[in-house]
Amino acid sequence: MPTKNKEVTTMKRASKFIFFLGISFLTITGNAQQKVHQYVDPMIGSEGVGRVFIGPSCPYGMVKPSPDCTSSPNSGWLPMPKEVTGFSQVHVSGTGGGPKYGNIQIMPFSGALDKMDQTSFRAEENVKLGYYETVFKENNIKTEITTGEKVSFYRITYPKNKSKELKIDPGFFLGEEKIPDAREAQQFVGSQIEIVSDTEVRGYSRIRGGWNNGRAYTVYFWAVFDQPIAKFVTFKDGKFYNNQKAQFDSGKKTGALLSFVNSGKEELNVKIGISFLSELKAKNNIEVEIPHWNFNTVLATLENKWEDLLSRIKLSDDTSVEYRKMFYTGLYHTMIMPVDRTGENPLWTNDEPYYDDFYTIWDTFRTSSPLITLIDSKRKVDIINAMLNIYKREGYMPEGRSGNDNGRTQGGSNAEVVIADAFVKNLKGIDYELALQAMIKDATVPPGGNEEREGRGGLLDYLKLGYVPYGTDRAGNRTIDYSYNDYNIATVAKGLGKTDLYNQYMKQAENWQNLWRADYENNGAKGFIMPKDKDGNWLDDVVFGESKIQKPTFKYTPVIIESPWYVCHWCVFFYEGTSWEYSFSLPHDIPELVKKSGGEKAFENRLDIFFDNNLFNVANEPSFLTPCLYHWIGKPYLSSDRIRTIIKNNFNTSREGLPGNDDSGAMSSWLAFHMMGLYPNAGQPYYLINTPLIKETVMKLENGKSFKITTKKMSDKNKYIKTAWLNGKPYNKAWILHDDINNGGELILEMDSKPSAWGTTILPPAK
Amino acid sequence: MPTKNKEVTTMKRASKFIFFLGISFLTITGNAQQKVHQYVDPMIGSEGVGRVFIGPSCPYGMVKPSPDCTSSPNSGWLPMPKEVTGFSQVHVSGTGGGPKYGNIQIMPFSGALDKMDQTSFRAEENVKLGYYETVFKENNIKTEITTGEKVSFYRITYPKNKSKELKIDPGFFLGEEKIPDAREAQQFVGSQIEIVSDTEVRGYSRIRGGWNNGRAYTVYFWAVFDQPIAKFVTFKDGKFYNNQKAQFDSGKKTGALLSFVNSGKEELNVKIGISFLSELKAKNNIEVEIPHWNFNTVLATLENKWEDLLSRIKLSDDTSVEYRKMFYTGLYHTMIMPVDRTGENPLWTNDEPYYDDFYTIWDTFRTSSPLITLIDSKRKVDIINAMLNIYKREGYMPEGRSGNDNGRTQGGSNAEVVIADAFVKNLKGIDYELALQAMIKDATVPPGGNEEREGRGGLLDYLKLGYVPYGTDRAGNRTIDYSYNDYNIATVAKGLGKTDLYNQYMKQAENWQNLWRADYENNGAKGFIMPKDKDGNWLDDVVFGESKIQKPTFKYTPVIIESPWYVCHWCVFFYEGTSWEYSFSLPHDIPELVKKSGGEKAFENRLDIFFDNNLFNVANEPSFLTPCLYHWIGKPYLSSDRIRTIIKNNFNTSREGLPGNDDSGAMSSWLAFHMMGLYPNAGQPYYLINTPLIKETVMKLENGKSFKITTKKMSDKNKYIKTAWLNGKPYNKAWILHDDINNGGELILEMDSKPSAWGTTILPPAK
Repeated sequence: MPTKNKEVTTMKRASKFIFFLGISFLTITGNAQQKVHQYVDPMIGSEGVGRVFIGPSCPYGMVKPSPDCTSSPNSGWLPMPKEVTGFSQVHVSGTGGGPKYGNIQIMPFSGALDKMDQTSFRAEENVKLGYYETVFKENNIKTEITTGEKVSFYRITYPKNKSKELKIDPGFFLGEEKIPDAREAQQFVGSQIEIVSDTEVRGYSRIRGGWNNGRAYTVYFWAVFDQPIAKFVTFKDGKFYNNQKAQFDSGKKTGALLSFVNSGKEELNVKIGISFLSELKAKNNIEVEIPHWNFNTVLATLENKWEDLLSRIKLSDDTSVEYRKMFYTGLYHTMIMPVDRTGENPLWTNDEPYYDDFYTIWDTFRTSSPLITLIDSKRKVDIINAMLNIYKREGYMPEGRSGNDNGRTQGGSNAEVVIADAFVKNLKGIDYELALQAMIKDATVPPGGNEEREGRGGLLDYLKLGYVPYGTDRAGNRTIDYSYNDYNIATVAKGLGKTDLYNQYMKQAENWQNLWRADYENNGAKGFIMPKDKDGNWLDDVVFGESKIQKPTFKYTPVIIESPWYVCHWCVFFYEGTSWEYSFSLPHDIPELVKKSGGEKAFENRLDIFFDNNLFNVANEPSFLTPCLYHWIGKPYLSSDRIRTIIKNNFNTSREGLPGNDDSGAMSSWLAFHMMGLYPNAGQPYYLINTPLIKETVMKLENGKSFKITTKKMSDKNKYIKTAWLNGKPYNKAWILHDDINNGGELILEMDSKPSAWGTTILPPAK
Repeated sequence: MPTKNKEVTTMKRASKFIFFLGISFLTITGNAQQKVHQYVDPMIGSEGVGRVFIGPSCPYGMVKPSPDCTSSPNSGWLPMPKEVTGFSQVHVSGTGGGPKYGNIQIMPFSGALDKMDQTSFRAEENVKLGYYETVFKENNIKTEITTGEKVSFYRITYPKNKSKELKIDPGFFLGEEKIPDAREAQQFVGSQIEIVSDTEVRGYSRIRGGWNNGRAYTVYFWAVFDQPIAKFVTFKDGKFYNNQKAQFDSGKKTGALLSFVNSGKEELNVKIGISFLSELKAKNNIEVEIPHWNFNTVLATLENKWEDLLSRIKLSDDTSVEYRKMFYTGLYHTMIMPVDRTGENPLWTNDEPYYDDFYTIWDTFRTSSPLITLIDSKRKVDIINAMLNIYKREGYMPEGRSGNDNGRTQGGSNAEVVIADAFVKNLKGIDYELALQAMIKDATVPPGGNEEREGRGGLLDYLKLGYVPYGTDRAGNRTIDYSYNDYNIATVAKGLGKTDLYNQYMKQAENWQNLWRADYENNGAKGFIMPKDKDGNWLDDVVFGESKIQKPTFKYTPVIIESPWYVCHWCVFFYEGTSWEYSFSLPHDIPELVKKSGGEKAFENRLDIFFDNNLFNVANEPSFLTPCLYHWIGKPYLSSDRIRTIIKNNFNTSREGLPGNDDSGAMSSWLAFHMMGLYPNAGQPYYLINTPLIKETVMKLENGKSFKITTKKMSDKNKYIKTAWLNGKPYNKAWILHDDINNGGELILEMDSKPSAWGTTILPPAK
């Protein structure tokens, strides 16, 4: 493009951009109280390690369009100046490991129909809830995206006097590697494309593998355009075909390049319906959901859906914009996964809801899942019924699940926590007898050849020895997770009046103690979860892999997280963490842990060492509860101090504003809970109370009641809870039952500049 | 239809029928030596218990069109006067249990487009290899079917002056039951249909379940007509739609009724391509395979494929037509399954062959699989590589597999036998190191929650106790099968020079002895495989299921096969058999069995009791080898006597000419082997020699050599082998190595009227 033209276009673009910002600003200021969704900033956590999905998505929405950058990032997106290869329709949010999805990629361009690679640099990029916009540097094409539940909507503006071309590439997917069956890599199975008419294209992408090592899944699509195609070429396996409207699936990559009629219009609108059943279902999804061509209507519909959910928690008027952004973005991130695929299950049909992309429950059980229960409990019931339906049809509830296939596990069979959490919080509409059966399946039947797909790997040893011996992958955190999961089973068994089961699983819930090496000292603390072999010997040196010649050992200590280069990181004693971290991760047995650690003083000291010496890893879910453990030694103010510091040092509204993989909103929901002053111990019926960051929070509950958390005299200085009242009565516990919240009412927290005796005597429950 | 017209039409039909028979007769007599495929009678074994597929099929062909009768038969077909609901494109052959497939049904009719049910009675029916014809009673419509590998070809002749209508029903499938997840029943997942043009219809059928309890599979189709559609209605969920060309998949049954232009032509030709990848692939399958409209060319192509395979074994000129029919139909039945789906795998792509419908290896390992090795060893290599590819991608080799999913097991993990059989017969092109790894996986890693899907159910007990204890389903035959499968592993391990593995598995190969109850007497024999509990106690009375109140026991004896009505027949001690049958089923350890039975005399007595008292069940695969066991006590002439009697009493050319479920050709190949005078002990490198039924058999081997079995002086009276020569040298063994056959040459058997000393001294090998 000649320089002069480019300048003009850039100016025009800039003015549009300002206009866009202006509208946003006006809307925000004009409806500050009414429209909380405007505080959602999808870019928080997009850079650095957060890996959140930045494109538009309905709550739990099936379609998630977003740019895909080079080098296979998990969410598709990477910051500028990375090139964009196109926009694909399915993504996940906040995940680590090998990517998943990235199906049905489109890419606008101007020029000859002679190459599939139309990679471009972005000149600018703008993102808000439900809306993505970018302008490409090379060709000044602007792409705007919004979306329905199952249909992406693209508004593409080509520069005046430039031709309007579009690539459609069902052969594309994220995380491609050349090694067949490379671990965690997606692998191509097949794709197909057909030019149906001058305004329609259909086809599919069939991919297997990815992080969860899933079986093949198929994303079908139907694309419609508001302007006719003038000419096209189709593509297969490296070759272009001028006169073939269709490229059938022969296990090779297919695609098409389309050129639209030069009508004088700069704008091309594209709707892409997707489906996991068929192309016609994808077409029907368009007809049902977006029968029109109004981009703004689609966006407004999406905004309203989010507004309905997000506005269930209102923050006081004086809350800073920064805190509003952090909080509502936190809620938003929590509700984009798992994905509602009801009516889109290619494996079986029945009247139950169907959800996919549990990615993974190990990540989400602690905070995401309880936050959904608090805001949107009907949704939670649907999600759990989907899990039970998967159990009924496939034999196990999911731990991880994506692309319609279970896989994989990281530690426990944490569906147990989700079930127990629902049970103790009285969620109705769940067959808990069936749920108990599903939990017991996890706890009694080894999952077979693939021990990281579902259920409990190393189960037979765990049942026989009371722990998973060193040599089985992730023996340490499997043992402590199973121990907690067994407590969850006991909880439900007790509630259903099954005393024998209750007794059996309460006993198993103590199994973590079998790996507690009482006399082991490290960094001033004593007693750690440490590796033990099958014969019951503690291991100071552990075998870290072996070759034909060498069987090197490695000194294992509670601060070790790394393993030698030749050992997979998921094969070690603790998954993604140290013994220091995991030795705190016993959510059901903290009083026993305090005792085993040498009593309250020693435990306080241990916690202090942990936080003061950077042994705490804010990015890792097993440590999520640890800052609250001071509650169990009667010092909730120390919990609040730690939490405040952690948030201040790690969370903000920047693109790097999340300190770890968001993992389907795990990080985000941890933050959102703490901002309200509440923190769940998932699987148990209470929330811990800490000093909130928000002065006043009102939850509109689904039963029509509301619950208000009001602080008095809170300031930077007055950061300690002095006294509390629940519904007007003095409330001396630093924890509150879910039922107390669900019955509606008000919790008043009066603040002071120094710690008080509040919450120090009646400690939070334990098993 | 008025009576007069009907009479005329019937006469016309009758004359055509005579004409058809006339052609067949001429062809057979004119080419007796050249065209052995004409001796194939697909109706042998179609009635009674045989359940063979009667429609046209290429060797290992993917598409298997056939009429579907009411009441859900396994092969679709039932004898007249049962009504025909239509013709569907995918079937299996000879199976028991719940049906599988029956997808994409079509049905011609004349009349209004107002009902999906167009069920009709047959007035006549004619079947030969590759060809099916029927005329319906109500409407005189004639339907002829032939087929390619992946494309069915229908020639439909409507009565003059009658309108030409056709139903296409992708919502149909075999074995429908109303109970969700009814065991062994297929369940509807989804279907779709689109009228593409006035000569094309596309769509699919997505079904789950069936006998192997498989995950959902999808059969896509593309149908083309040689005449234009004049009008149509589409159908969904009980309603007809006049103006909708497509019915998308919303989890409801869809279909269409088509009315063709009244051109004056009575004939409508229909090609239906199928695919497991996509509709376009199905269309491509038509374009590649049958680009023309010549029915006879399709039929001739199919005949040539079969002729090439069947003519590899030639029978002497004096062989009776009956024997020719029995023999070549036996070969034919053996090579219609498993099904070659290379290029049609929706789960992964690579360069390996892909086969489906292993149904099951428990049935086929004994005779079908070795017969394919003998006739078509390259095919066998492909099949084994497909099994290994399934292992690589899915974790286990199949035992049963159908609809692209493993499941289910009946006894052992018998892929081990198939591998060992290929290994000892020197089949090239197989990675035996990988195969050994796959076998060891079966033998060491429990298959997880679903213990009847793949691998070895009850494995942990088997490894710990040396047997599968009573209480685990099919504990008896699992133990003896695992024991044999372990011998197969030892065989390959030894051949690959892995002595430790060899020793380990040879030891395990003795495990059957742990269930040998030496002092147990029944019907004059002593020592039986009997149930034992986990603690090592023999069980006289066994618990047969339990309710909340009752735990009835049941006296278990070696003649019991039945269980109380409330116990599933696959949960009992022996699958489909008695201890009398299974206590002979130790193909690797017969000398030890002879010893344990009390020596040669007692063993002979035991065999005699077995056969003389109807304890032998000709219909059941575990007894396939038993008539040959006299060989191991030096009395091969007694084996021959038994075999001749069994064949005479149970096999013939009638529709009830097979005494049990043909199970992918298991029965048929048992017969074919014995007719030649050979019988394999699968997994071991030799064939037992018996008196043949055919005077002279010539095998054209794939290496260009040929092997001839010639009898001298054979007659009804001279039924015993007196002496034998191999390549001119006296041959005194009643068994012959595969290598001796494969090297080419001639085995001469001189017959006599009384038993001789031939074959009595050098007994067949054992472990």
